[in-house]
Amino acid sequence: MQTYDLIQKTRRLEPLTETELRWLVRSFTEGGIPDYMMSAWLMAVCCQGLTIEETANLTLAMRDSGDCLDLSGIGGVTVDKHSTGGIGDKTTLLVAPIVAACGGFVPKMSGRGLGFTGGTIDKLESIPGFSTSLSTEEFLAQTREIGCCVIAQSGNLTPADKKMYALRNLTATVDSIPLICASIMSKKLALGADCILLDVKYGSGAFMKTPQEAEILASLMVDVGKAAGKQCRAVITDMNAPLGANVGNALEVAEIISMLRGESRNTLTELSLALAAQMLVLSGKGDVIECRRMAEEALTSGRALDKLRAMIAAQHGDAAVCDDVQRLPQAKERVTVTAESDGFITGIQSEEVGLACLGLGAGRTAGHDTIDFGAGVTFAHFVGDEVHAGDALFTVYGSSVSLCEQAAARLRKAVTIGTEAPEQVPMIYRIVE
Amino acid sequence: MQTYDLIQKTRRLEPLTETELRWLVRSFTEGGIPDYMMSAWLMAVCCQGLTIEETANLTLAMRDSGDCLDLSGIGGVTVDKHSTGGIGDKTTLLVAPIVAACGGFVPKMSGRGLGFTGGTIDKLESIPGFSTSLSTEEFLAQTREIGCCVIAQSGNLTPADKKMYALRNLTATVDSIPLICASIMSKKLALGADCILLDVKYGSGAFMKTPQEAEILASLMVDVGKAAGKQCRAVITDMNAPLGANVGNALEVAEIISMLRGESRNTLTELSLALAAQMLVLSGKGDVIECRRMAEEALTSGRALDKLRAMIAAQHGDAAVCDDVQRLPQAKERVTVTAESDGFITGIQSEEVGLACLGLGAGRTAGHDTIDFGAGVTFAHFVGDEVHAGDALFTVYGSSVSLCEQAAARLRKAVTIGTEAPEQVPMIYRIVE
Repeated sequence: MQTYDLIQKTRRLEPLTETELRWLVRSFTEGGIPDYMMSAWLMAVCCQGLTIEETANLTLAMRDSGDCLDLSGIGGVTVDKHSTGGIGDKTTLLVAPIVAACGGFVPKMSGRGLGFTGGTIDKLESIPGFSTSLSTEEFLAQTREIGCCVIAQSGNLTPADKKMYALRNLTATVDSIPLICASIMSKKLALGADCILLDVKYGSGAFMKTPQEAEILASLMVDVGKAAGKQCRAVITDMNAPLGANVGNALEVAEIISMLRGESRNTLTELSLALAAQMLVLSGKGDVIECRRMAEEALTSGRALDKLRAMIAAQHGDAAVCDDVQRLPQAKERVTVTAESDGFITGIQSEEVGLACLGLGAGRTAGHDTIDFGAGVTFAHFVGDEVHAGDALFTVYGSSVSLCEQAAARLRKAVTIGTEAPEQVPMIYRIVE
Repeated sequence: MQTYDLIQKTRRLEPLTETELRWLVRSFTEGGIPDYMMSAWLMAVCCQGLTIEETANLTLAMRDSGDCLDLSGIGGVTVDKHSTGGIGDKTTLLVAPIVAACGGFVPKMSGRGLGFTGGTIDKLESIPGFSTSLSTEEFLAQTREIGCCVIAQSGNLTPADKKMYALRNLTATVDSIPLICASIMSKKLALGADCILLDVKYGSGAFMKTPQEAEILASLMVDVGKAAGKQCRAVITDMNAPLGANVGNALEVAEIISMLRGESRNTLTELSLALAAQMLVLSGKGDVIECRRMAEEALTSGRALDKLRAMIAAQHGDAAVCDDVQRLPQAKERVTVTAESDGFITGIQSEEVGLACLGLGAGRTAGHDTIDFGAGVTFAHFVGDEVHAGDALFTVYGSSVSLCEQAAARLRKAVTIGTEAPEQVPMIYRIVE
């Protein structure tokens, strides 16, 4: 088989066979195909697309490029969740304990943050002592015993994806729906949960700018998941404004603890309950009404908080943060910004919020890998809220006043106030089954 | 400037500026851009295209990547000709002496054959002793004195094109109209003739399969040539059947000598006279009627043959071949194929003819660089001719009977005979000014 011919075929919109895609992925992973040929193929995919069948075959070939976990030792139906990434997206920290409290099993591998979107692993690592590197045996045992475990991607899972992603990241070939699908789904399939719930974001803070684009990606991922024999659904959700009140690693952990304690509730809570309900439906725990009620009960009863506490303790973290969030890393300085006029909050540009937090040191940039866990922003109001001149809008947390003020200046522009209440967009646009 | 951003722009159909294209070409030529980024950009160009302005700027940037010749020492209006390549295309060997015999100046650098299309340089090198590597001074002096000189590409002309072409050839990014245009025109512009005539082929033996595609390439090249301040025209010509009766290096030289001696004449002669007339028009020698008459006179008077003889002698070749073609390399074996039935020749598939000749060792394949100069095929009939069962159709020449028979079997399928005379397609489809 010749790489040249496969590039030519994709360029000419002639579908590649399963055998051809497996050969391409295996040869590239093993170093038999030079980067300059692979990047040409990847660009051809970006411009010309792949069929659903090709995308499924590519995904399975990438899944099989490395190890696949065997989760059968957990002894129950396992359910995984993936979010395509957003600002303030801490839903995993809520849904994993909620689903566990309802008898589900959530074995989860998460990523670190990249660019302006935070990573679940970074958030968890802001809890003193918390370990995200467990052995596979520990990972399975904890999921079996507690119902949830969240660790960093490790081992030799989907090396093809790692190598392809590195090349895509250098050659402007990241934003391709079939390639995004294959990258995400190959990792989910290698992890091997029985059920997969996908949270596909759209909006200013997401890869997909419109719900229509997000739906195309969501449908493709659901098709590929089903083709691989999984229970699979996708929820298309709004990422025009940040999720929840807090953005920044320790600040986000503090927010989810406050929710699990029943001390706060906002659209993040509602989204997390909806996602948890879908995960329970996929796990066969009942219909969506029943599962939603179970999730709500797990939250309000405090049983979900108990699961979080147990998970933190099992992963060597300071579980006392669940009772006192002051034990989380705190920023040295803070700056509060108030409204200059009366009106309604018409928008909070999530991409700008992400970039402001990156500026504060709350995220990762190329060649700058240390994170200020305490840095970030807390919003006193959400989109649609009425505010009056002088009301606090948000507070910025950082290691110096000057860093806080730079971020505050950026955030002031990201928060728009108008004279009329904006139309409220539902958090969930559609569910794709 | 960042390569990533330029790739992204081209992928998103956002035009690159002249500065950006110059930076891209210079950085790639100097080794500052890795192949895997350049191949992604080249694929983006193949899929998304470039504007005319971008193509012109890319071409000029490639021209300026190395040396540009100064032809002013020739002391007259110089005219170059380029053919996009075909089977049996030996027009350069006819038009250069014809134009020289009419007072024109043809300083020409040609390529060697690649794949199934022969190269003018290989054809000339089949003449015993003929040298295609002259110094620039010798090249200019011979053109000034004789009116024509044909040498191999040499020196540091368009290194960007060499490097880009090598990468395109490995990554299925050759057949892109803007990239083909930039590759051809950058070399023509670096050579520096005042006038450029382009012979753009269409048909089974050409890159462009239809006259419409050929016209798009031709118009683009003419636009780019004019943007660079040149007199420029293109002739769109048929390459469905091989040009002339002979295909193969020494066989083609023998055919043009026979034409210049007035011993044979076919559509190749007519095409060459038309091309020569256009070159004379571009050189300011008169209108197309006058120039065509001048070309005809140069041919029939024997003055064009004298120019060829002088050129061969000046380039250290055995000029006596002009009087005795038996002095050219001869194949050891030959096999003649006859018609099996009565009818009309409805087609001679030129790509198949090229591949058959490649099989005989008449061309270059990757990793197989020695050429059997005597090998090839001579056709006894052309498309449209009536033949009777038992008439000779063609004769194959090669180093062994078995090689000849293999090629004959392939050629037998390439020559189709039907019961009705085919519609005759004019050799020249259109002239683009």
